[in-house]
Amino acid sequence: MIGKLGGWDDTIVALATAPGIGAIAVIRVSGKKAIPIINNMFPSKDLPQQASHTLHVGLLKYKEEPLDEVVISLYKNPRSYTGEDVIEISCHGSPFIQEKIIRAITESGARLAKPGEFTQRAFLNGKLDLAQAEAVADLIASNTEASRNAALKNIRGGFSTSLQHLREQLIRFSALIELELDFAQEDVEFADRKQLYDLVHALQHNTQQLLQSFALGNVIKNGVQVAIVGKPNAGKSTLLNTLLNENRAIVSDIAGTTRDTIEEVLNIGGVLFRLIDTAGIREHTADIIESIGVEKSYEKMRQADVVLYLFDVQETQVNELKLIEEELKKNAVEYLLVGNKADTNEEAIRQKFALFNNLHFISAKNNLHVDTLKQKLLAISINGDINTEATVVTNARHYEALQKLAGSLEDVLHGLDEHVTGDFLALDIRQSLHYLGLITGEITNEDQLDFIFSKFCIGK
Amino acid sequence: MIGKLGGWDDTIVALATAPGIGAIAVIRVSGKKAIPIINNMFPSKDLPQQASHTLHVGLLKYKEEPLDEVVISLYKNPRSYTGEDVIEISCHGSPFIQEKIIRAITESGARLAKPGEFTQRAFLNGKLDLAQAEAVADLIASNTEASRNAALKNIRGGFSTSLQHLREQLIRFSALIELELDFAQEDVEFADRKQLYDLVHALQHNTQQLLQSFALGNVIKNGVQVAIVGKPNAGKSTLLNTLLNENRAIVSDIAGTTRDTIEEVLNIGGVLFRLIDTAGIREHTADIIESIGVEKSYEKMRQADVVLYLFDVQETQVNELKLIEEELKKNAVEYLLVGNKADTNEEAIRQKFALFNNLHFISAKNNLHVDTLKQKLLAISINGDINTEATVVTNARHYEALQKLAGSLEDVLHGLDEHVTGDFLALDIRQSLHYLGLITGEITNEDQLDFIFSKFCIGK
Repeated sequence: MIGKLGGWDDTIVALATAPGIGAIAVIRVSGKKAIPIINNMFPSKDLPQQASHTLHVGLLKYKEEPLDEVVISLYKNPRSYTGEDVIEISCHGSPFIQEKIIRAITESGARLAKPGEFTQRAFLNGKLDLAQAEAVADLIASNTEASRNAALKNIRGGFSTSLQHLREQLIRFSALIELELDFAQEDVEFADRKQLYDLVHALQHNTQQLLQSFALGNVIKNGVQVAIVGKPNAGKSTLLNTLLNENRAIVSDIAGTTRDTIEEVLNIGGVLFRLIDTAGIREHTADIIESIGVEKSYEKMRQADVVLYLFDVQETQVNELKLIEEELKKNAVEYLLVGNKADTNEEAIRQKFALFNNLHFISAKNNLHVDTLKQKLLAISINGDINTEATVVTNARHYEALQKLAGSLEDVLHGLDEHVTGDFLALDIRQSLHYLGLITGEITNEDQLDFIFSKFCIGK
Repeated sequence: MIGKLGGWDDTIVALATAPGIGAIAVIRVSGKKAIPIINNMFPSKDLPQQASHTLHVGLLKYKEEPLDEVVISLYKNPRSYTGEDVIEISCHGSPFIQEKIIRAITESGARLAKPGEFTQRAFLNGKLDLAQAEAVADLIASNTEASRNAALKNIRGGFSTSLQHLREQLIRFSALIELELDFAQEDVEFADRKQLYDLVHALQHNTQQLLQSFALGNVIKNGVQVAIVGKPNAGKSTLLNTLLNENRAIVSDIAGTTRDTIEEVLNIGGVLFRLIDTAGIREHTADIIESIGVEKSYEKMRQADVVLYLFDVQETQVNELKLIEEELKKNAVEYLLVGNKADTNEEAIRQKFALFNNLHFISAKNNLHVDTLKQKLLAISINGDINTEATVVTNARHYEALQKLAGSLEDVLHGLDEHVTGDFLALDIRQSLHYLGLITGEITNEDQLDFIFSKFCIGK
């Protein structure tokens, strides 16, 4: 495979830290010429003579022009991220200086790295398998505990390990069946059909579990869209504030990002909940249920993964709520009826709305039962707890390959039922192995790799 | 001084790279507890046992929760930027992860660093003098060759060295005169008044040179404002394009910054020229000379450091140009008359406008003599070449201190002329030493330092 891909024999350079002004910036260089190129620009020390994993302070120069006072991090192959010689230059964080240094390095014989090219090289050099490499991009994009944990677990090989396990068993059977083909005249069965049946059945069960985990994986990676709807004065705005007021992320302070006024984000148990059309709620303008039957309100609810219908327990009649629940049931999304202003006469209120199951009482104003509402929201969204030990599929490409794997395992089972000959069985098993290989990168082509890594950021 | 300032015995942490998403981000920790805090979060190795200036790859954990796969850069005191124990954590560039790590470190006993606090500690630990520390901020903000070079030179001690030289000589005389005071009864003169006079005179000359360099320093640091004015169809827009079309900075590509549509920036010989009201020129709407006499046009020209008056050599009459030059002379800014469309009948055109000195002929369309126009623009702005060897004052605080120094040296000279007694002379010399000390940081107070470093970015 390495031979086929080619072109990665050259030396690449890119800014590895976020663009813009910072105290420092890091420029990453990887490839055969990384050390000679930088050594030529760094008169203070002879870098080839230095040990791997060491730091060197000095002046970086290019053609006698001083560029910056820098710190060089030296990683010698194969003990580096890419598996090649890698140098990281920690320079002053002026974009002008970043540019000057990168330009000097490209003029010295390196070229600008493509997005994800460092990680692609790590994969090609066997430092990571493909599922691990893809988790690197997920980790950089992670914005909650759960997405960070899932990505970190996959970088450390969690997902790959469970696939590897399936794969090894299949390969064993595949080998046995291929062996039978060599003795086709003698009508032997090295591979016990009963054992194979049990294995493939077990594999299919595992594959189905992984496929099912994608719903959770998707929630972990992309969050849950929640629409808070209800009549004016039901308390939508108050509920929103109560939900948001605790534990505001300090990410925005650090990152200097501005909070999106259209979409508010809530982190419950490590899962991001994105509140749809929050601006509308804040302004008391967009009221959805008031215009029930109007296409637009359905549209908004269909956008959501969960609809949270808020009503005033005093003002709302039971029949009215029944009608609303019927409307909500017509949509294919999860919903929760939330009775607000329920901080007096709790028993009477419970009796009034006794015929509803999917109901939760709160007082948004007094922050009563809002915490348990959050837990219900989480439970509805992920169908139970997040099991941090289980392997979760978060990547759509993996999901697609797993679906195809499930299909080809079905073919194997069908073949066994029909007592097809060994050569047909071998074909179906090879097909299953192919889909498994797509995920971990044993089977890839250059276009596929380029596509996968093009979604990375530059410098990674 | 160190004792007075206090409070820097604690351990500080900050994001050192630009905020936002990057392949990696660097978090810097400095102080007595830097190594124990991070060691506690880094199970892979025992950091206190590791050598300074080494790199360590491993999992960062906080209370059993895995945070990220990171690289630790270890710098042991005093061999670090701040002079304290310093750890830099290179983590995946997700703002969420950056925040989690910083929060874990603050919960472990560090506090968030104030802007410039790392550099302030470097100063307090004697790693840099104040002028060098200030050059660090200039270096991060640098956006041209010249500003980068001036800052780099000052970080390496260029400015400090020349001040140090002045200071040492003054201190020697001060000591001699103070010695005289001890023998006041005996009427001796240890300090040769003639030598002192010569020294102070020389010092004053040097100080004046440094003061004069501030005009250049200011140009280097802040650029030159240029207004291109002229009638419609004089070719302003074409000239602008010709000026800008070469060597567009690739900084904007790397930094992801958007080009300001109001102000175009041109780099000539390492100096930034900022073209005022470029948007107006592009749109052919704002024409300044057409409305000569209108306050607004004067206002724009007064904003500029240089006015470039563009006229059509065919269409423009000599008398008209005379009137315009008179108007331009009334403004206290530099100006250059630029005859455009001068690519035919050059000799005739020269004769036609022979009575003007401050004149340059070009063809903007055919890129004729535009290069020499750039050189003239540079020469007008900086009164000659940039001497890269000379020390240039770029900092307004230093300029102010140098002005006060010049005043107090004047007092010393005056005192010598008037044959004042040694105690008065000593007083004036001490005053001069005080102003010199303000620049290099021998004399500072906490408020002053806080103010100086508050202009730094966080993490530096």
